[in-house]
Amino acid sequence: MSDEKLPTRTENYSEWYNQVILRAEMADYAPVRGCMVVRPYGWALWENIQASLDRRFKATGHVNAAFPLLIPMSFLEKEKEHVEGFSPELAVVTIGGGEKLEEPLVIRPTSETIIGHMYSKWIRSYRDLPILINQWGNVVRWELRTRLFLRTLEFYWQEGHTAHATAEEAEEETLRMLNVYTRFAVDDAAVPVVPGRKSSAEKFAGAARSYSIEAMMGDTRALQAGTSHNLGQNFAKAFEIRYLDAQNELQYCWTTSWGFSTRFVGAIIMTHGDDQGLVLPPKLAPIQVVIVPIFRSDAEKALVMPVVERVRQELSPFRIHVDDRTEVTPGFKFNDWELRGVPLRIEIGPKDVEKGTLAVARRDMPGKAGKSFITQDQLAGQVAEFLSDIHASLFDKARTFRDEHIFDPKDYEELKEVVKQGWAFSWWCGSAECETKIKEETKATTRCIPLEQPGGTGKCIYCGQPASEKVYFSRAY
Amino acid sequence: MSDEKLPTRTENYSEWYNQVILRAEMADYAPVRGCMVVRPYGWALWENIQASLDRRFKATGHVNAAFPLLIPMSFLEKEKEHVEGFSPELAVVTIGGGEKLEEPLVIRPTSETIIGHMYSKWIRSYRDLPILINQWGNVVRWELRTRLFLRTLEFYWQEGHTAHATAEEAEEETLRMLNVYTRFAVDDAAVPVVPGRKSSAEKFAGAARSYSIEAMMGDTRALQAGTSHNLGQNFAKAFEIRYLDAQNELQYCWTTSWGFSTRFVGAIIMTHGDDQGLVLPPKLAPIQVVIVPIFRSDAEKALVMPVVERVRQELSPFRIHVDDRTEVTPGFKFNDWELRGVPLRIEIGPKDVEKGTLAVARRDMPGKAGKSFITQDQLAGQVAEFLSDIHASLFDKARTFRDEHIFDPKDYEELKEVVKQGWAFSWWCGSAECETKIKEETKATTRCIPLEQPGGTGKCIYCGQPASEKVYFSRAY
Repeated sequence: MSDEKLPTRTENYSEWYNQVILRAEMADYAPVRGCMVVRPYGWALWENIQASLDRRFKATGHVNAAFPLLIPMSFLEKEKEHVEGFSPELAVVTIGGGEKLEEPLVIRPTSETIIGHMYSKWIRSYRDLPILINQWGNVVRWELRTRLFLRTLEFYWQEGHTAHATAEEAEEETLRMLNVYTRFAVDDAAVPVVPGRKSSAEKFAGAARSYSIEAMMGDTRALQAGTSHNLGQNFAKAFEIRYLDAQNELQYCWTTSWGFSTRFVGAIIMTHGDDQGLVLPPKLAPIQVVIVPIFRSDAEKALVMPVVERVRQELSPFRIHVDDRTEVTPGFKFNDWELRGVPLRIEIGPKDVEKGTLAVARRDMPGKAGKSFITQDQLAGQVAEFLSDIHASLFDKARTFRDEHIFDPKDYEELKEVVKQGWAFSWWCGSAECETKIKEETKATTRCIPLEQPGGTGKCIYCGQPASEKVYFSRAY
Repeated sequence: MSDEKLPTRTENYSEWYNQVILRAEMADYAPVRGCMVVRPYGWALWENIQASLDRRFKATGHVNAAFPLLIPMSFLEKEKEHVEGFSPELAVVTIGGGEKLEEPLVIRPTSETIIGHMYSKWIRSYRDLPILINQWGNVVRWELRTRLFLRTLEFYWQEGHTAHATAEEAEEETLRMLNVYTRFAVDDAAVPVVPGRKSSAEKFAGAARSYSIEAMMGDTRALQAGTSHNLGQNFAKAFEIRYLDAQNELQYCWTTSWGFSTRFVGAIIMTHGDDQGLVLPPKLAPIQVVIVPIFRSDAEKALVMPVVERVRQELSPFRIHVDDRTEVTPGFKFNDWELRGVPLRIEIGPKDVEKGTLAVARRDMPGKAGKSFITQDQLAGQVAEFLSDIHASLFDKARTFRDEHIFDPKDYEELKEVVKQGWAFSWWCGSAECETKIKEETKATTRCIPLEQPGGTGKCIYCGQPASEKVYFSRAY
């Protein structure tokens, strides 16, 4: 931990973000431009995210598999929009085993093409459908402007790829997975998100329809935190993914894809973090409870440590860490674990041993408000309650902040102002022209057309033409 | 499942191996030469392997992290032996985002170099040591002759990388992880392995000392199933990984690396498989118990299915699958699940319902020997016992087979013969010359110098000079 003070979020949000990640040892810059090293503390958070999502995927009937990293360049060219969208971002392998390759291979930026190719081999009849496969892996996109977790050349994610017999089933799957992402964000990460449809301009290259969940960061910008795409028959036609239906007629499949990446680690940092550093949601935090023993002499140590050990054992159902470093002071440790966002701190000193109490400090309520003394009995139950309270209060705080920064501007002039400090929720006629103008003039893009609409109709915030849907406009990561 | 008969192992071992994998849907060939797609059934097996190893790594104090896929070419060149060993196998990215790169990037064939670079940034003092990091990921080596799971351009593995203050600690770690691999192979995969030291010629490019576990496959060839390397100070010196010791003097670290890959899936297939297909060890099998309901009418179905459902629920502590397909016969299902190597099959028909029994078939004992009837009570306990018996019997069978094919040839002439049908365990003087001659003349390589030695001394099987250690010679995968 560096001794220099962390910049505050109002001083320099972007630098606060970088410094929190580096100092909390979540990640580091790699020697290759735009790549990151995810350090053990950051990876442990990602592993908890993976475990929760994976459980949800399996509960909805999905299985995991692994498709190759390297894709023939010609595969990408089979779907027109797809290649246009991804070709500027490709990393290309031209040499293998010392020889120039006949056909260059790209490192997957996403795997619709190679998985489509395999599905065309595997799927024969309607009995083979649906195919519900997910893959956890790494992808590479040659981004120019990169940020730790938010946008890196290589990133880690899961990509689900499914094939169905009908358009309806594919749409159902697309929305089912959008909902899985929503439930995960809300229930496990305490991150309020808006599920909605992407505009045509913002949809995935090659999709018929894209959906996303959008979250508001601490600087009021939007972050697309997960996407789910209905690919229609676009990839099925490009890769000849067909099946014999019950009438023995050959049909094209309907496919979907959906992805969730390490970018969400950035979303957690920017949703909950404060000027002291990270604030991690209890269900995902690598360390849920840190115990700091307090003593100033060997005699005090002999008093304190047996209680520390007993508390550690009683709290074994939780992810727990005892900070028994001797080379730093308790004060240093408090700051250190606050920086690292551990939800709950328990201090045990000689007075606590005497009184049968423990001092507890909540990370989400810095200062005195979050401090209390608890008795040493029924400890696991008390801690579970604290963690559950912290989860709820993190969610409420983030939702309140978000709702306070969502505006309903009365006209375009007001929209221009509000998107400097939040999101505008406005009627939009659906034309790409209005969307582009707004983007050029305000830097705010359409984030999503939320599934939940107010009903009725209105007038487009830009052109005044009739509009049937409201959309969120915001600057975004 | 194809209708054609599987080739037997004696007819064509290599073709038996490929066909088992393809038909059991463990993996498929990818459209890029030498790459594979690991299908859901194969990946589920790998996930179980991962879970078991990961638990063992964490229990020995290791944490996971993620280092980049792309490594600057210059990094590999910093360690002389390392670059010589790996440069013929590299996949090289020369184009990124449409532009020619100034310095080509290689896709990691292994990560000692980039991790060494990061360790040199992170390690300052003896208090930072040891660093015990593992990474689960994919690597690429441009192999010319490839085989599903055994040798593919891209493969999946874990690579542990640790840094220590002393030579002793590094050696201890190297042997500790070799032992973790041994325990995993024996206790979870029922694969008997020999832990031992590699010869200088066979060691990892850049290591001071390499160790491996070696297993005997069903055709008596050896397979190196996991490796653990003491890297000495080679990488520490190449990458300036240094620490200030307690006396404030700058010292080079001692590092290790150890890896275990999807190749082990091949080891499981070739250790336990038989002419009917896969035989999966119960602790790792994606499906431990398959239930096949048997009925010929709706009336029988109405009788059978409630019992199937009750049995499914009672067996929920196990990985269980109910095969309720209606388009295929029970006979087809039996063959199908035998091919896929499910350890235990339970059949439930109208007669079983009547008698309160279940028909059970063990995969490791095909035919009548493995069939029995059990009562429907205390089912979970009975199944646990079956699975435990199957594990033990798989291990015993494999160890007996191995030991019957390990020979102690009296001279070199006899060695030439025995390595055609097994391993030779012979005294060796340790000279690379004898090793090379034997390899050229018999295709048998030194597999490992086992940690357990008979004691005493002998004469080199090739040159007759005094020898202090015995080594295994064998043809290998």
